[in-house]
Amino acid sequence: MFTLYSLKNGLTNVRGIYCDGVNCGLRPDPEQGDLAFIRSEFPARIAARYTSNRFQAAPLRHALRYGKSFEGNFILANAKNANAMTGEAGIRDIETILSHLPANLEIRNPVMSSTGVIGYRLPVEKILRGLNKLDWHARDSDAAARAIMTTDSFKKELCFEVELADGSTFRIAAVAKGAGMINPAMATMLCFIVTDAAVPAEEMEGLLEEAVNGSFNRISVDGDTSTNDTVYLMANGASGAYDAAAFAEALNKITFELAMMILKDGEGANKVVAFEVTGAASDKEAQIAATALSNSLLVKTALFGEDPNWGRIASTIGASGVECDEERLVIHYDDLLIYDAQHRELDPEREEQAYRIMKQDSFRIRCDLGIAEGSFTAYGCDLSYEYVKINAEYRT
Amino acid sequence: MFTLYSLKNGLTNVRGIYCDGVNCGLRPDPEQGDLAFIRSEFPARIAARYTSNRFQAAPLRHALRYGKSFEGNFILANAKNANAMTGEAGIRDIETILSHLPANLEIRNPVMSSTGVIGYRLPVEKILRGLNKLDWHARDSDAAARAIMTTDSFKKELCFEVELADGSTFRIAAVAKGAGMINPAMATMLCFIVTDAAVPAEEMEGLLEEAVNGSFNRISVDGDTSTNDTVYLMANGASGAYDAAAFAEALNKITFELAMMILKDGEGANKVVAFEVTGAASDKEAQIAATALSNSLLVKTALFGEDPNWGRIASTIGASGVECDEERLVIHYDDLLIYDAQHRELDPEREEQAYRIMKQDSFRIRCDLGIAEGSFTAYGCDLSYEYVKINAEYRT
Repeated sequence: MFTLYSLKNGLTNVRGIYCDGVNCGLRPDPEQGDLAFIRSEFPARIAARYTSNRFQAAPLRHALRYGKSFEGNFILANAKNANAMTGEAGIRDIETILSHLPANLEIRNPVMSSTGVIGYRLPVEKILRGLNKLDWHARDSDAAARAIMTTDSFKKELCFEVELADGSTFRIAAVAKGAGMINPAMATMLCFIVTDAAVPAEEMEGLLEEAVNGSFNRISVDGDTSTNDTVYLMANGASGAYDAAAFAEALNKITFELAMMILKDGEGANKVVAFEVTGAASDKEAQIAATALSNSLLVKTALFGEDPNWGRIASTIGASGVECDEERLVIHYDDLLIYDAQHRELDPEREEQAYRIMKQDSFRIRCDLGIAEGSFTAYGCDLSYEYVKINAEYRT
Repeated sequence: MFTLYSLKNGLTNVRGIYCDGVNCGLRPDPEQGDLAFIRSEFPARIAARYTSNRFQAAPLRHALRYGKSFEGNFILANAKNANAMTGEAGIRDIETILSHLPANLEIRNPVMSSTGVIGYRLPVEKILRGLNKLDWHARDSDAAARAIMTTDSFKKELCFEVELADGSTFRIAAVAKGAGMINPAMATMLCFIVTDAAVPAEEMEGLLEEAVNGSFNRISVDGDTSTNDTVYLMANGASGAYDAAAFAEALNKITFELAMMILKDGEGANKVVAFEVTGAASDKEAQIAATALSNSLLVKTALFGEDPNWGRIASTIGASGVECDEERLVIHYDDLLIYDAQHRELDPEREEQAYRIMKQDSFRIRCDLGIAEGSFTAYGCDLSYEYVKINAEYRT
């Protein structure tokens, strides 16, 4: 038994966490942050999940030296420059920057996390000047969350407090950035989670893997997977409280809700759709079909047009190569029957209901393949003119 | 030794071929054709290639009863209705329609081919009335080519004459429709090829497979594969002429040029780009990387924005999962070096040259992975606002 509460003010609700964000000149507008840190004043452990992209950016290759779970209490993050495809020089730049962190902060194994354009060296001097502007004893979660935004239209920040049956409490908080290049196997996304729960060191990696598989690995904005995707979970145990089931639920919830915020803020997206595939030959086949639906341009443009064109849903399932049969397939939008072998053409009444469902900000497209028991849910969004505009003009 | 000439007037250059197109009420504008036939007055053989989509439309399932290569001299085609996801009733509708073809035409194993919206029964009565309007002795290739267009903005029709060393000649001609849902493993495309070459029956299937693999299976507009994709090759031998190498080259050329016409007419597309991947661990890995590039939304929008953002090219290769190494990767746009490990950031001069290359209607993006000898070229197009508009409003 445990109770979970939402708290405001993000990261700094967590005991021992300091953070700040400033502008160091990576963004032209001095009012917009582009450099942030998150640190624990207590010794902490960090578990990491990284992109599946073969070209891992320099910050990932630097941090991977510590392994996927390591003692660490400091994350430095920047926007506008991904420090990707920058070779060994990109790693040396990180080492230079991190060597300038104040000695009195008792920093252990600091890591860096970057997002932005690929292929340019970090402006080391600018960032070093930025380090001098950061207040190492600030507790400004808002500034940190804003400094990692790129094409995000709103900041992504959440905090929960968990009260256990014995009255003890721990907190978990996170900031994330998302928007484009969002695909299962992560996204152009960074997510930094901090907690004062007393998570056993050996459980960190497994807990984070489960949480990421149920959240960030289920969302797609555009089917592209970036070079920089990173999720860090930093736990300092400062609350002394822990319960395995309660912590897993809180971690899964915070990552899932952040994933939905990223999708809602998908570049040019107007609606979030859950693609629930059931009755597949296996969970793997359900995943293939659900992911194909969330990535299909024809499905995404039909969502934007609010057109209940179930033919595109069916065609995409068929094109995904999974076992299927038009006599057994059943499609619902929310609870409205859209297709089965006895109801192939939408009558005007059902079509009218379908339009009403599609006009919502969020709804479910449920496809039962009728083959066996495999199931998977993926989450996607529509594709609008705005997506094309944002991405045609991104770098310029 | 042989010589290949381009001829005008399409299908009817081929000896023994008749064709026509009329409006039977599937399109609202009576001036626009929606029903066409192609027939050989002589006995002929048809080889077929169909979509890899698991939900094959009724016309494909009907024709597959004859096998993938069969004696046949008649193709009936319609636009606006795909006759897909229509179950056994959809096949019975085809049988009803084809049973009304005139008995005196000596038709053998007639097939039907449909394109349009998924999920609606064919309006059989309209099509039967349309049969009465078709002139079975017409030689109107233009009308036939136009009647199968959907979102196509121009008709796709080609004819070549091949003169062999002994002075004998044969002809090959084709019409196609394309535009959207174009993906390797075919496309929402129909292509009907006719020839009077004396192609040996047992070579038909292999020749068509090779031609399709080198053309329609290399192009992508939007990564979606339809339920109806069909390529038919009908050979009646009426010229008495044949040479295996000459015929293969003519067939490969006509399918490749039609594939490029389809891509050029990709919904909302402004430019055609060849993605040449070399130096991959295998041809299969080169194909995975090249196809990923031709399908990436971020690459396609960068093409539309004419932004020489090679980071998206590199990131897409890395995300495709193929073996790669940023120290060995080399990227060219046409002959301009865009990236190698010694030239990571574009200097202003090369950037200016890159802009000029990207402004062309057509150019090459060449990626050498530097791993081994695998190679593959895929063809894609940019993604514009217009694509979103066409596909948000397609059915309505």
